[in-house]
Amino acid sequence: MRKSNEDTWQRFQKYYTEFPTLGLALDLSRMDFPEEFFTTMAPRLEKAFAAMAALEQGAIANPDEGRMVGHYWLRNSTLAPNSSIRHEIEATLAAIKEFGAEVHSGKVGGTNGPFQNLLVIGIGGSALGPQFVSHALGNPASDKLRVWFFDNTDPDGMDGTLARMRSELGKTLCLVISKSGGTKETRNGMLEAQTAYQSSGLNFGAHAVAVTGIDSELDKYAIKNGWLRRFPMWDWIGGRTSETSAVGLLPAALQGLDIDAILAGAKAADDVTRQTELRTNPAAQMALMWFHIGEGRGTKDMVVLPYKDRLELFSRYLQQLVMESLGKEKDLTGKIVNQGLAVYGNKGSTDQHAYVQQLRDGIPNFFVTFIEVLKDRKEQSMFVDPHVTCGDYLNGFLQGTRQALYENGRESMTITIKDASAFAIGLLIALFERTVGLYASLINVNAYNQPGVEAGKKAAGTIIDLQLRILTLLAGKKASPLTASQIADAIGGKPHVESVFKICEHLAANDRSLLKKSASSPFAATYELV
Amino acid sequence: MRKSNEDTWQRFQKYYTEFPTLGLALDLSRMDFPEEFFTTMAPRLEKAFAAMAALEQGAIANPDEGRMVGHYWLRNSTLAPNSSIRHEIEATLAAIKEFGAEVHSGKVGGTNGPFQNLLVIGIGGSALGPQFVSHALGNPASDKLRVWFFDNTDPDGMDGTLARMRSELGKTLCLVISKSGGTKETRNGMLEAQTAYQSSGLNFGAHAVAVTGIDSELDKYAIKNGWLRRFPMWDWIGGRTSETSAVGLLPAALQGLDIDAILAGAKAADDVTRQTELRTNPAAQMALMWFHIGEGRGTKDMVVLPYKDRLELFSRYLQQLVMESLGKEKDLTGKIVNQGLAVYGNKGSTDQHAYVQQLRDGIPNFFVTFIEVLKDRKEQSMFVDPHVTCGDYLNGFLQGTRQALYENGRESMTITIKDASAFAIGLLIALFERTVGLYASLINVNAYNQPGVEAGKKAAGTIIDLQLRILTLLAGKKASPLTASQIADAIGGKPHVESVFKICEHLAANDRSLLKKSASSPFAATYELV
Repeated sequence: MRKSNEDTWQRFQKYYTEFPTLGLALDLSRMDFPEEFFTTMAPRLEKAFAAMAALEQGAIANPDEGRMVGHYWLRNSTLAPNSSIRHEIEATLAAIKEFGAEVHSGKVGGTNGPFQNLLVIGIGGSALGPQFVSHALGNPASDKLRVWFFDNTDPDGMDGTLARMRSELGKTLCLVISKSGGTKETRNGMLEAQTAYQSSGLNFGAHAVAVTGIDSELDKYAIKNGWLRRFPMWDWIGGRTSETSAVGLLPAALQGLDIDAILAGAKAADDVTRQTELRTNPAAQMALMWFHIGEGRGTKDMVVLPYKDRLELFSRYLQQLVMESLGKEKDLTGKIVNQGLAVYGNKGSTDQHAYVQQLRDGIPNFFVTFIEVLKDRKEQSMFVDPHVTCGDYLNGFLQGTRQALYENGRESMTITIKDASAFAIGLLIALFERTVGLYASLINVNAYNQPGVEAGKKAAGTIIDLQLRILTLLAGKKASPLTASQIADAIGGKPHVESVFKICEHLAANDRSLLKKSASSPFAATYELV
Repeated sequence: MRKSNEDTWQRFQKYYTEFPTLGLALDLSRMDFPEEFFTTMAPRLEKAFAAMAALEQGAIANPDEGRMVGHYWLRNSTLAPNSSIRHEIEATLAAIKEFGAEVHSGKVGGTNGPFQNLLVIGIGGSALGPQFVSHALGNPASDKLRVWFFDNTDPDGMDGTLARMRSELGKTLCLVISKSGGTKETRNGMLEAQTAYQSSGLNFGAHAVAVTGIDSELDKYAIKNGWLRRFPMWDWIGGRTSETSAVGLLPAALQGLDIDAILAGAKAADDVTRQTELRTNPAAQMALMWFHIGEGRGTKDMVVLPYKDRLELFSRYLQQLVMESLGKEKDLTGKIVNQGLAVYGNKGSTDQHAYVQQLRDGIPNFFVTFIEVLKDRKEQSMFVDPHVTCGDYLNGFLQGTRQALYENGRESMTITIKDASAFAIGLLIALFERTVGLYASLINVNAYNQPGVEAGKKAAGTIIDLQLRILTLLAGKKASPLTASQIADAIGGKPHVESVFKICEHLAANDRSLLKKSASSPFAATYELV
């Protein structure tokens, strides 16, 4: 059913491109686009290149929010649209390096000695990049600090992280990252951390650093409480493209990673993907493939399979970069399009043992992006069979799975990088940023806003507000148990009776003085404050 | 566009079911199935219940492989179809507990003292369950052993894990899990671990334990090398349903987790989901919902969003359980159906900041399974706002997101559990096992085979074999550099020239004495052994 091996070799030679300045190769040969596809798409691609050029020059590329989109400037400040932005970028980078050096030398330390741990508090764009990079480039034997995360408002999750490091809080630097400075999960994590430091007899501010927008709530809080340092986030950087701003670079520098190499990799990828010649532009090639496979509507999921443990968190990072950028109700003309591109995957060959069964035989609702890393490990490998190493198997499984999928008509792209170095991580980030930007132009959506996120936050606010009204009502009516329905009636929240029920169930499970009396039906149960 | 709040409350009361013996509730109210759906599906469901009853009684439920499917017996050995199986289950459980006690008391220890670490080597069904449970129930303050994993054949990944524990190998128990005993990734990991122990001057066998099929390669190896213990895997247990066998229970017991409670939770869920009354059977309800939302063809992805850090790995566990079970080319009549159900997700509210934008506004190609955990944390919570805790926010975000998605026509189910206890983890595992089994019957596929996995393994074997032929050729032709195409010609592997090219690129990147001379085109490059 598929082409003969000879045909695939011809096609491979045609659609396998090396990008020597990047140590990158991209193979499109197992994507079944027709020969004329590139020509057909040329006019749309021209428009996308033009939009990207305007964006890089400082156009208001995020029209909803009236903002410039400047993450490309972070890697090459000479591209910044004015000298003020250029200086801010350069000064911040210098400040990051200086602070990193001061922490590593012990000049800046904690109450109980030089910092040995870094607790990063952030969520979404303020956590996914730092987590990905920390895991991709970390080396337990040489890292300057050991890195931990609060990336949620789950109290038990924070307890678990603190349990591993509570005795070391006096040597732990706490980095709170929030662009807006008002993200509740991050604020909550910060308050929990502050309490933990305080109950260890430590002054939290003396161990705390902020990355946030100037004059944000968090910024003011940091000033007021005498935090160690504050680093800026700018309104022209979106959370999901902030890895090469202080958001990503500060934790990386503190861990001891080579942030210059990350930036160099990103810059090199920007230089290549800025070119408007499809043949020499891997981001443009990938964007066209996304268009081909999903008919420009995201009809197939992207399964990301890096064959390298270090890249295990890349798909999670890409979930945000891709899905939050492309998952839009309307296009730029206001037409309802319900766009998007779903992303999942962990790593190969591990995932082969989880779901390649479905990929090969099951519902063909996906394409795979394989990521191949040529360099196996730092040292020489032992042989597990004569002349065969673990890494040979890893590579063999990648090739084998790619082939097995292709035989059954499942398409894939393969990205090959030389190694999982800081340079390569920087280039991968920039490569996908540009791909997302170009593809967004191809399908005519704003890649830089996120209007759909607000509704859930507002609805959550309603729940918190309802909870307060419930508690107030019950406090005034001690010893008179009420059903959820009666409570809703009494607080004028009749339309929210379902939420009232859920809130009461949650409170009753958490020793919050709210007692539940069960009844024969769930909804006849009554609640009272005791 | 959606129903009024009053209508949703009516619907909520109708389709929210509590299962008191489980501490579980299931809410289907935000799935838009029609009123008559349950009635329409009743005959199919009857068939599914009958198939499940036969399976539990020891029928050959996996016809391709001629095997019984017995994971339900593990939680209730009185159900086993004969006394020999019953005794094996009971004896193995007793042996697990006994060995755990011996390790914890120090009666069985390593060369350098009592065991403090556990290195688990396994992949797929031999890693996903242990990883999920270890993370879900672990407590750094009280765990008896600290658990690490080799779950891939990535040498650099193993180096990273070893870097954290190399100095402690003499106090590290190594548990190698492979049902077949021949899984290459696991075999490779075992050999790498063995080498690491040996280069620390340690006898590997004195620190090693196997879980494997009797007389497997691994079993023989363990005997020959005097390993500490061997625990059996049976052919009537599939990898993806092996969490309540020695595969899952042994590492859990060694970590110090309450395996009796895990088993009790699974048994309780089995007892409930064995009932053939839809109203009181949460697995049957979920299976019907999967059928409804995906039109019985898996047309929508399942996004799994537990609002609890401890459950972060559940979706990865479910990827295997669901996708490997359901992702089948043919149904039981041999008809080509390309079935499946794609699963992804990490945790809330974290994922809200990654891709809820797309879920709410973008392509509606999914449904959400929310998992709510009522109990927030062990201790009392501080207030982050007056009368409001971190956990209130976590719950508020779940309710808010569920509501925001529903407003835009995105359907969801909500599973509520009382807490993330060992009992609850056991019940979740059993609940989804039964749901998968019932749904597989509804769509008439064999949930217990994985024919599609072999093709990739075979193709990988071809790559390894080609590599040996390349090395042999070049060893005989030192100093005569050849292109990939010339090599392929010479070894009679012309049809595999693309693979030859990829193999040479990989070898050249890894100091394997294979030197690449680059040329103006990638395919004119030559390779030679030096």
